[in-house]
Amino acid sequence: MQEQEIIRRYFNYPVGSGGSGVTLGVGDDAAVLTPPAGQLVVSTDTLNGGVHFFADADPYLLARKAAAVSVSDIAAMGGRALWLTAALTAPATTASDWFLQFSRGLASSSSDYVYTVVGGDLTCGEQLSITTTVIGVCTTPPLTRAAAQVGDDVWVSGTIGAAAHALAVRLGTLPAAAAADMQAAEACLHNPVPRQTLAAALATTAHAMMDISDGLLLTAEEIAKQSTVAICLDAEALALPASFVALNGEQQRQCQFVGGDDYELFFTAPAAAAEQIATLASAAKIAVPLSRIGKVSAGSGVTVQLKGQPLSFATSGYCHRFS
Amino acid sequence: MQEQEIIRRYFNYPVGSGGSGVTLGVGDDAAVLTPPAGQLVVSTDTLNGGVHFFADADPYLLARKAAAVSVSDIAAMGGRALWLTAALTAPATTASDWFLQFSRGLASSSSDYVYTVVGGDLTCGEQLSITTTVIGVCTTPPLTRAAAQVGDDVWVSGTIGAAAHALAVRLGTLPAAAAADMQAAEACLHNPVPRQTLAAALATTAHAMMDISDGLLLTAEEIAKQSTVAICLDAEALALPASFVALNGEQQRQCQFVGGDDYELFFTAPAAAAEQIATLASAAKIAVPLSRIGKVSAGSGVTVQLKGQPLSFATSGYCHRFS
Repeated sequence: MQEQEIIRRYFNYPVGSGGSGVTLGVGDDAAVLTPPAGQLVVSTDTLNGGVHFFADADPYLLARKAAAVSVSDIAAMGGRALWLTAALTAPATTASDWFLQFSRGLASSSSDYVYTVVGGDLTCGEQLSITTTVIGVCTTPPLTRAAAQVGDDVWVSGTIGAAAHALAVRLGTLPAAAAADMQAAEACLHNPVPRQTLAAALATTAHAMMDISDGLLLTAEEIAKQSTVAICLDAEALALPASFVALNGEQQRQCQFVGGDDYELFFTAPAAAAEQIATLASAAKIAVPLSRIGKVSAGSGVTVQLKGQPLSFATSGYCHRFS
Repeated sequence: MQEQEIIRRYFNYPVGSGGSGVTLGVGDDAAVLTPPAGQLVVSTDTLNGGVHFFADADPYLLARKAAAVSVSDIAAMGGRALWLTAALTAPATTASDWFLQFSRGLASSSSDYVYTVVGGDLTCGEQLSITTTVIGVCTTPPLTRAAAQVGDDVWVSGTIGAAAHALAVRLGTLPAAAAADMQAAEACLHNPVPRQTLAAALATTAHAMMDISDGLLLTAEEIAKQSTVAICLDAEALALPASFVALNGEQQRQCQFVGGDDYELFFTAPAAAAEQIATLASAAKIAVPLSRIGKVSAGSGVTVQLKGQPLSFATSGYCHRFS
């Protein structure tokens, strides 16, 4: 099938399918959009086959994850996704059912997080690759990485480390837990939930915010660097994923601090707001554990403690390296 | 070098480097932008190594071309580029000088066409691939593919077919012209000029508009289909690139009608505006040939005539095919 036919059949999303303000969606030289009041927030992410996902990844979940990665960046600014473009490179041998499932995954994400797919590109290439760009809106001042203040508490949403555990089991480098627990961990890896509703609820309370895509330690280091502060984290304060019963303490901490692909929120907030923040965990439409895991102080760098003793890690998290 | 270090060194474009309205550019979870009055136009394009360009392509020109492809889409709506994101996938063996040259190419494009690079992604992958997303603004009603009217003239900018000739010479399928003429053709292929200023000047005159990325015939067919009209093109009315002296008539027409990568504008406009449009060709800051190459009539489909005789082509233009 030709690219135009695949786009017409599978990717011709209706303009009113999710977000608002879409005059013209997929199919012309460019989409035509009317922005609402507020500042726009824009983020772009690429997932490559063989690097970010296995070449045999389920196309429905792959589309959802690619979209979630960018929606999560919008959430981490305290914003709300409006519009998404998806550029898909696929081998010429890709079957039409693969495109259908990918298209359905994207549609389900756009419905879940209330945005519209307004454009993209479909090209041939040896390697499967997806680049998503999400445009969102902030109606409150954006939550940057540079806004942590001395005295702030450090919080994370969800249970950090389950995605890294699921990946390590697939790679054969860590032991598996019982099937039901591994299923939950695999859902974290393959079908992450961008914390858009939580972030919006925190938008006028939190100071700095960032999503944990490349590992908790790397995220803390980035916030500390951009905010010119020191951050101390307490390893015992992190909620434990159920699958962690299969791991010893050192394996658990490796997944929690250095593993990536969590897409949970890392944020700092004034200590006085702690009680108010804790109640959000059980709020309607949020329902995610919130853990207060550390403190911001004057200085620089990140320290991690376990029962008062400092922990050290060989690397800070996931990053691409070039020659 | 790690991705963060490459981004910090080469891709940390200043927020005031091109377009306006940038509160926060490269370096946080998302860019923060303030849209001007008007409707936003958004387009995404991917160029893959081995498919859209040779793996040994000059990185400076490659960056300029990747950006031009998306800016050209914004121009084709009658819009003006404001902000660009670039997602770059590169093999782990890519040298730091390659990134430096790519970064300089992107900076030169952003300066030429007055937009700001506000974000992107840098990932490892086996194959070089670039996805650009440009957000622009239309202060006049966008020029769609569906707006051609019966009685309109059909126009194109520039000299169509030179990029296809340069590519065919590199592939060894067509003969080369003299060095200076081939240099001009190669510039069309490797360093296309998005016709943003011309399109803006036509924004209240033209009816339908589209850029000719995948071939003139395919572009005419798309406009005819979306506008529910017939289009008749006169092969003799097209301006000839200098390199065409090396080609016979059939080879010339193959490059002109079926070759791609031109990024010139195809547009329709009322016959009464012909004189006014013709004067734009020599206007300051535009300076590009404009050829009136056909007519829009009631009906459907595209016909191409040469001295009153119909021409036929085996294919309409470039498209990706999947199994």
